Amino acid sequence: MSAKHLASCIFCKIIKGEIPSLKLVETDLTYSFLDIGPLSKGHALVIPKYHAAKLHELPDEHLTDILPIAKKLALAVGCENYNILQNNGAIAHQVVDHVHFHMIPKPRASDEEGLVIGWPAQKPSMDELKELHEILKTKL
Amino acid sequence: MSAKHLASCIFCKIIKGEIPSLKLVETDLTYSFLDIGPLSKGHALVIPKYHAAKLHELPDEHLTDILPIAKKLALAVGCENYNILQNNGAIAHQVVDHVHFHMIPKPRASDEEGLVIGWPAQKPSMDELKELHEILKTKL
Repeated sequence: MSAKHLASCIFCKIIKGEIPSLKLVETDLTYSFLDIGPLSKGHALVIPKYHAAKLHELPDEHLTDILPIAKKLALAVGCENYNILQNNGAIAHQVVDHVHFHMIPKPRASDEEGLVIGWPAQKPSMDELKELHEILKTKL
Repeated sequence: MSAKHLASCIFCKIIKGEIPSLKLVETDLTYSFLDIGPLSKGHALVIPKYHAAKLHELPDEHLTDILPIAKKLALAVGCENYNILQNNGAIAHQVVDHVHFHMIPKPRASDEEGLVIGWPAQKPSMDELKELHEILKTKL
């Protein structure tokens, strides 16, 4: 498998062991560790070893074992309620420009702990949705 | 591959075609479609055909092509900024009890459109993190 690192990337340095981390699961393609600024106890990150800033820049083969590892971490933490989150772009809350998936336990209904979600649902008409659907189908 | 459906599940009904949907990509194991109550234009859902309420209840083989499809949808929509989100449990904002991944474009920095994220970071000590790390390693 190909590897690609970026010398200046903090997550590439963690993968190479140049910066210490609280490592959890590691496979040929993927690395996971505890977030040291967690939103809740057990908040962990799962990252591909291949360097890409955003999900759509990552070759498919580097996506294969990310979710099985996130699942494994949720089971190890023993959380029943949790969010899987991957942010792309600063305006979408991405802070480190290396693809990373958060596994964030939600121990209780509270804005003080775990991921806090706002849901500003839009109200497109069915015609608008169908028009978008037709356009997207030509691109898939 | 095994399939498992739940007669009363709205997403199982969508997969079987009993409820109409604006289908995007479909594979042997996975189905995707436009969210009809979107947070932004292009908001789509990717779901395993196998019925499981939460990620940790889903067999690994049903997780394999979810992220490649989410990536494909982001590319088709052409969004540079977006969030991938999967919620487990009502207190973690899960509304339908069938595993689903949101691909939510974030067209601009605004709380009026796209996913809105709150980040109540905790401040555990390094000793607390190391203690948790030791416990988790015994479970992985």
